[in-house]
Amino acid sequence: MRPEDEKFMRLALELAKGGEGWVNPNPMVGAVIVKDGEIIGVGWHQRFGEKHAEVNAIEDAKAKGHEVKGATMYVTLEPCSHWGKQPPCADRIIKEGFKRVVVAMKDPNPLVAGRGIEKMRKAGIEVEVGLLEDEAKKLNEIFIKYITTKIPFVSIKLALTLDGFIATESGSSQWITGEKARQRVQELRRRHMAIMVGSGTVLADNPRLNCRLENCPPKVKVILDRSGRVAEEVRKGRKFRLFDDGRVIFFTDRPEKFEGIAEAYPITEPEEILRKLGELGIDSVLIEGGRIACQFLSYADKFYLFYGPKLFGNGIKPFECLNVEDANEAPVLRIDSIERLGESFLVTAYPGDGDVQRDS
Amino acid sequence: MRPEDEKFMRLALELAKGGEGWVNPNPMVGAVIVKDGEIIGVGWHQRFGEKHAEVNAIEDAKAKGHEVKGATMYVTLEPCSHWGKQPPCADRIIKEGFKRVVVAMKDPNPLVAGRGIEKMRKAGIEVEVGLLEDEAKKLNEIFIKYITTKIPFVSIKLALTLDGFIATESGSSQWITGEKARQRVQELRRRHMAIMVGSGTVLADNPRLNCRLENCPPKVKVILDRSGRVAEEVRKGRKFRLFDDGRVIFFTDRPEKFEGIAEAYPITEPEEILRKLGELGIDSVLIEGGRIACQFLSYADKFYLFYGPKLFGNGIKPFECLNVEDANEAPVLRIDSIERLGESFLVTAYPGDGDVQRDS
Repeated sequence: MRPEDEKFMRLALELAKGGEGWVNPNPMVGAVIVKDGEIIGVGWHQRFGEKHAEVNAIEDAKAKGHEVKGATMYVTLEPCSHWGKQPPCADRIIKEGFKRVVVAMKDPNPLVAGRGIEKMRKAGIEVEVGLLEDEAKKLNEIFIKYITTKIPFVSIKLALTLDGFIATESGSSQWITGEKARQRVQELRRRHMAIMVGSGTVLADNPRLNCRLENCPPKVKVILDRSGRVAEEVRKGRKFRLFDDGRVIFFTDRPEKFEGIAEAYPITEPEEILRKLGELGIDSVLIEGGRIACQFLSYADKFYLFYGPKLFGNGIKPFECLNVEDANEAPVLRIDSIERLGESFLVTAYPGDGDVQRDS
Repeated sequence: MRPEDEKFMRLALELAKGGEGWVNPNPMVGAVIVKDGEIIGVGWHQRFGEKHAEVNAIEDAKAKGHEVKGATMYVTLEPCSHWGKQPPCADRIIKEGFKRVVVAMKDPNPLVAGRGIEKMRKAGIEVEVGLLEDEAKKLNEIFIKYITTKIPFVSIKLALTLDGFIATESGSSQWITGEKARQRVQELRRRHMAIMVGSGTVLADNPRLNCRLENCPPKVKVILDRSGRVAEEVRKGRKFRLFDDGRVIFFTDRPEKFEGIAEAYPITEPEEILRKLGELGIDSVLIEGGRIACQFLSYADKFYLFYGPKLFGNGIKPFECLNVEDANEAPVLRIDSIERLGESFLVTAYPGDGDVQRDS
């Protein structure tokens, strides 16, 4: 690696985020082309099925009148070596005469990992791998989970009071967090293909479950409705706003109730639900229903815990299905970051098993 | 004010903290003496009853062979104008021939505020007031509350799981937070004159309730023991570690049980307890007993909420005596800071009444 490499790779990682929400279940990828120390082209994978980051960067450079022959390509993920919806990028890089390629991380798919790198090296290109690998892996944590397991990446989002309640005993929860936190939730929705809630949330709040950011594709809405209560209400003439846009999928014991209303599967077991969503090509689920979060606790890949500056004293607990007797046997999370959002704050965490006592 | 003033006042504020825990119920005060742009003396109020910051700074300058005549004094609190345990600092500053005095904040006691400043001005000294006033007020929030109300500053400290429990249903709470958080608790103990818990905590954990930092005076231990259970156990021969050092005060319905054992008052109502502690000269109470915190919720001046990265699902709630029906009527706190402490984090908050919905 050279001292300037990191700067260009950071830019490539930033560019990659331009595809957030649009490329799923593909990875977000960014590419930067540098020649004689100058950036001559940039690109990122913009939408699922469209051109890859490497090709967009090459075309950007050419459109600006640059010659990419002999240049260095910085790319956040190993260029592909196989035909998918697009021709293989490794071949294109070889054909264009790049001198050097710096890759942040290998393709996480164990069946193809390394083949793009190998192909380019065999063609005489100097290839370096692993620069800002941790950042690249975090950027594509959804893609990595899904491509390696075919199970969606599961995020649990909750809005809690400082004393840990998601609603009062009577179900009142407006507003635990403030405007900035709610804006941040929209960003989480952009990142995930699907949003999942229980039928209770749909019946009580009639939520849109859409993403209200300017640059946001429609969301898949997944509703757990064991007894088909939403279908019954639809038949009675009630309008639900979640049908306004995007695909709606119900998991229920009563799929017949949904005939002519919505896509429904006779599955109610959490693991089977996730497996089915994976089969349907959904790489990521944001669980927003506080009351269903506990069922998916052991499948969670990430936690987004928004705390608002209130105290309820009593109320609805988010993980009531969990009952820890001994504090030392409690599930331990690994806190990744804490963000202040006005008067609220967001704790982002992963499942962990660290020894909290020692702060290792 | 002059551009360099702030730098010197910040130093004075830092120096003031050297008295933390030792000067109560006096304020922490720091002083810096500057001549021709150079610091020639520094001082702080080190212990209750001993010399004030201003005098320590003057003596420091003289010990180093400097002449303070014509110098500027930066002091975090208005110099006193009356005889207490020490002669009035304003007189000393006048006598020494200071040219200019910069004061962060007036004496908060409305009966004396401004007199020291007035005295110095009358003597021809240039006096400026209000530099870093917010920081000075925060530094001495305990002193300000106590001198103006004679009620101690009440801090509630809790260790919570991410889902808001202070213990499991069975009472298990070791360890919710990690080593760094526990170290931070010791700093909070240093800052407060008294530590308060309920008899349940004493009986269950037999805590020392001392401050284990190197530079820490003995703490006053306040135990709420309505029925005198601790006294009964003492009579049965049980040894409690809280009697190892420092003053121990019980509030109870059964003061007779404590005869020959410890100081006890026949008071159990929270407001009366605080009033009594104020009469006893105690300027600050750190409430560490999770189960008694709720009784003092409406008297709390500050909250120290330590969160450990665990989930209990169910368990003991810190503010169970509170029952909010409508989320919009819940007590709202104002978050002052969030500190990461290894795998745990500390949210410091004040009682607030802001509109969380708008993040104003």
